[in-house]
Amino acid sequence: METGKKKFLKRGVDYPIVDGARTLPGKYYHSEEIYAEEIEKIFNKFWIYACRAEEIPNVGDYKTIQVGDESLIIVRDKSNQINVLFNVCSHRGTQLCAEEKGNFNTKAIQCPYHAWTYDLSGKLLAAPQMQESEKFSKVNCSLPKAHVHEWEGFIFVSLAENPEPFEVQMEALIGKFADWKMADLRIAHHIRYELNCNWKLILQNYQECYHCLGVHPLLSELTPVQSAQHDFSKGAVLGGFMDITKERGSMTMDGEAAAPPVCDVSGDDLQRVYYYSIYPNLLLTPHPDFVMFHHITPLGPEKITNDCYWLFHPDVIKDKSAQVGVKSAIDFWDLTNKQDWQVCEQMQVGTKSKRFTRGYYSGREEILHILDQELLKALGHEDPGS
Amino acid sequence: METGKKKFLKRGVDYPIVDGARTLPGKYYHSEEIYAEEIEKIFNKFWIYACRAEEIPNVGDYKTIQVGDESLIIVRDKSNQINVLFNVCSHRGTQLCAEEKGNFNTKAIQCPYHAWTYDLSGKLLAAPQMQESEKFSKVNCSLPKAHVHEWEGFIFVSLAENPEPFEVQMEALIGKFADWKMADLRIAHHIRYELNCNWKLILQNYQECYHCLGVHPLLSELTPVQSAQHDFSKGAVLGGFMDITKERGSMTMDGEAAAPPVCDVSGDDLQRVYYYSIYPNLLLTPHPDFVMFHHITPLGPEKITNDCYWLFHPDVIKDKSAQVGVKSAIDFWDLTNKQDWQVCEQMQVGTKSKRFTRGYYSGREEILHILDQELLKALGHEDPGS
Amino acid sequence: METGKKKFLKRGVDYPIVDGARTLPGKYYHSEEIYAEEIEKIFNKFWIYACRAEEIPNVGDYKTIQVGDESLIIVRDKSNQINVLFNVCSHRGTQLCAEEKGNFNTKAIQCPYHAWTYDLSGKLLAAPQMQESEKFSKVNCSLPKAHVHEWEGFIFVSLAENPEPFEVQMEALIGKFADWKMADLRIAHHIRYELNCNWKLILQNYQECYHCLGVHPLLSELTPVQSAQHDFSKGAVLGGFMDITKERGSMTMDGEAAAPPVCDVSGDDLQRVYYYSIYPNLLLTPHPDFVMFHHITPLGPEKITNDCYWLFHPDVIKDKSAQVGVKSAIDFWDLTNKQDWQVCEQMQVGTKSKRFTRGYYSGREEILHILDQELLKALGHEDPGS
Repeated sequence: METGKKKFLKRGVDYPIVDGARTLPGKYYHSEEIYAEEIEKIFNKFWIYACRAEEIPNVGDYKTIQVGDESLIIVRDKSNQINVLFNVCSHRGTQLCAEEKGNFNTKAIQCPYHAWTYDLSGKLLAAPQMQESEKFSKVNCSLPKAHVHEWEGFIFVSLAENPEPFEVQMEALIGKFADWKMADLRIAHHIRYELNCNWKLILQNYQECYHCLGVHPLLSELTPVQSAQHDFSKGAVLGGFMDITKERGSMTMDGEAAAPPVCDVSGDDLQRVYYYSIYPNLLLTPHPDFVMFHHITPLGPEKITNDCYWLFHPDVIKDKSAQVGVKSAIDFWDLTNKQDWQVCEQMQVGTKSKRFTRGYYSGREEILHILDQELLKALGHEDPGS
Repeated sequence: METGKKKFLKRGVDYPIVDGARTLPGKYYHSEEIYAEEIEKIFNKFWIYACRAEEIPNVGDYKTIQVGDESLIIVRDKSNQINVLFNVCSHRGTQLCAEEKGNFNTKAIQCPYHAWTYDLSGKLLAAPQMQESEKFSKVNCSLPKAHVHEWEGFIFVSLAENPEPFEVQMEALIGKFADWKMADLRIAHHIRYELNCNWKLILQNYQECYHCLGVHPLLSELTPVQSAQHDFSKGAVLGGFMDITKERGSMTMDGEAAAPPVCDVSGDDLQRVYYYSIYPNLLLTPHPDFVMFHHITPLGPEKITNDCYWLFHPDVIKDKSAQVGVKSAIDFWDLTNKQDWQVCEQMQVGTKSKRFTRGYYSGREEILHILDQELLKALGHEDPGS
Repeated sequence: METGKKKFLKRGVDYPIVDGARTLPGKYYHSEEIYAEEIEKIFNKFWIYACRAEEIPNVGDYKTIQVGDESLIIVRDKSNQINVLFNVCSHRGTQLCAEEKGNFNTKAIQCPYHAWTYDLSGKLLAAPQMQESEKFSKVNCSLPKAHVHEWEGFIFVSLAENPEPFEVQMEALIGKFADWKMADLRIAHHIRYELNCNWKLILQNYQECYHCLGVHPLLSELTPVQSAQHDFSKGAVLGGFMDITKERGSMTMDGEAAAPPVCDVSGDDLQRVYYYSIYPNLLLTPHPDFVMFHHITPLGPEKITNDCYWLFHPDVIKDKSAQVGVKSAIDFWDLTNKQDWQVCEQMQVGTKSKRFTRGYYSGREEILHILDQELLKALGHEDPGS
């Protein structure tokens, strides 16, 4: 059980409340310029979540994701290695792959336009009609690649040339959640939400339960708002947990566990739901009996998709009689998500007002202040002060 | 009857025709920059029409309106006073109220996100979990307010810090139309039109009947184009009247009055329809038997909503047998409006041409030249000359 | 048969392959600024295709077209002359004509707003209520006109003040295709495609058959890719032909001719399909038995309409039993077009990537390099180099 977990601090009690800490100015949620900076300095530099390894189980399987203007192909090659290739032909710039998921049956990636053909590591195999010369040579025309790292079944990518080691960016994460053996879990359900708000509002919403009493009556009944505790954190991976009051309960419509505890989960973890924001685009929520997570894809300063996944043990997924519990977990979070989207979208609209002059954070929102600081640091912006 | 009315001048006869006066350059209808200036220097400075007092008759009733990026809550408080509050929570900037109309049942405005609660004058009553400190104190977190002024049942607001007195901006209006007792009238019908044109094109369209012969055959039959007379005017409130030729007629599908004369209307006013543009966003059209008005809301340089209302005496609205007349007035103006929208939208498109080199106004369009001058003055732009 | 045709060069064989020639940078397909330059320096300067003369056969018939922000009226006047008038009233800038096609029954063009009336050559005939003065006079208020030139039933316009002579811009075209007597042909069918790509991608797609083997299996069967030959060309009119292998075949679903040879077509031309891009907006494809052409209208850097027309001899159009053949030609090109649109739209998306670093052209894409050079010359841009 003691898999590298550290002690936690009681929210609004042990944790230092920052007196006078204020929100970001409204332009951080609306400006096209700041959004472009975020793509360049955060989404193109940090390790970001891409997909689950289980989504591309076989050789040739791929998934495409969007990062700003870049489309990436996450593909499993013949040596079972996962490669992350820029989805753009070296010849005329055609997007190679227009589908979100599939399998390169031929074990090669062929451009639909002029049939230039790459192997699954991005090497240019064939360029019909092209003559090798001093200027053109196939070896110089491989698909650009991004870095890749797998952690507990989650595939992360980095578009940086020389990214910080995964373990440094994700230090606060390493060693946690080993008991869940998340690499063994499988996606039981997926919902895509299309939202009219800035990506940061979703992280902020996730990192405080100050709003829970009013926005989430059912959630507040299952996990008391006052029970929130927070991890020590370094960098932008932040999190903590809340207590599940009901014995062997979980976050479901009736508060009962949706399934038996996941793998080796035991002890205190049987009565806790963890909330970790894996900056910048993954929100990871391990429960005793399942794992829920969000994958955030910014599509502009005021638009995102939020893909929500429910992971269960494969035995549970196979067991027909267990589906009532699975559905109850899905329904609970779908309800809770929609409650959150409503207030996030209203905050998006409201912060356009020139009369919004940066509010003060409560003690229960200290993590938001940390998120803001990390953002400003990453962008190289001066702190707007308090 | 002589309620401050002044003498009028015959259009195209008494009124000085400005020889060589030319239209605005086309960019005034298309430029994002000029639009932003208009919001800042006109819609955020002038008194602008917001809603009818009758739309919020009871304590807690509210209506929200949009002024550029600002959403405003017009709300009636316990002391029966009307307040105009910026629709943005002082905490994190959430829009407090997403509905267009409603009632704050609790007699308080509560943010849906973290339950910060304001009274109906905007005072912050409760901010859960917040600790008063040197930096944060509730008294500094009231909702920002805009100025409000009620005239004849019409509620006007000003977002300026120190607005010009209402009576100065609206001098040309004061004392007029007292016989209609408009505060006593009620909305019989409302139509929202969504139009692809600049807000100024609607004012221009309203302030000349040069187009009537071709565009409005029925209107021209009821009120001869040559009968148009104009008020002396100071500032941007401009207007005049046209003669209704039929004895006890009105602007309806068959030209017959839609209802008995409104309140104390008598004498010459029984055969006149008045047209006043209450700059910048209200077009007021008192008839002997009803009042029609337009509320213009700009949503960008090329997009507006135009809310058209028909006011009748409450006795008429209650009387079932009177509804044929009411409907005839509605149908007449709906027909006439749509004829206008067509040409306004064609002018919007046409003025994009680089070959449009500013045309010359006719004598019958002198008011448009005055409107242009008021605009340029308000924006602090140099006159583009003739 | 020898109607000014010159000798051709075998593609990828006789034609000089430019070693190391590279594609344009991706911004040429996405930048709003470059698009605005293209409208100004190409579409507002060059002769561009407008419509077929047969579309406005009678006095008063008109068609409107869009060129950037300008709408143009192509109208046939009483002396049977075709005039090209800017579709904007000299008075207030209203678009005169909102329809795409029609007939000015009154033999005059009347503004729908204030009834200013122009004759079919654009002369202002009547401006009601306007008083002639030193400043305003009707003779100065004619509709601006663009230049017009008819070639083989195709009407071209130029918005330039002093355009290059048509014969200079179109030198490579003059004397070609006389055997088809295209002025005598008639539109048998028309399809409008709305595409999300830059206008130049359609020209590039049209000017190489390197993509045919993979993208167009049926086309490649009818006309071998290796048979492509190219004309000497000066300026931006570029083209060549491919061999139809089947005796008396054509580009149809079954490869059989859709109709008898057009007019005087004979000899080698009975086994050829020609492809000429009449820069910047007409793609002309004469077959032995019919003529297909595309009219490209850019609506922004990433949006076009592409109007595809099939011209047949009037005898064929009248003959009911011939419609099977006509339909086969339509179906063939509709299929082929849609195959092209797919890859063009994928190239549009892909070239947004910052990792697309300008690819190398193959020998079979030499014409694209010429098109790129013509573009850079027309825009006055420096060559980005190889």
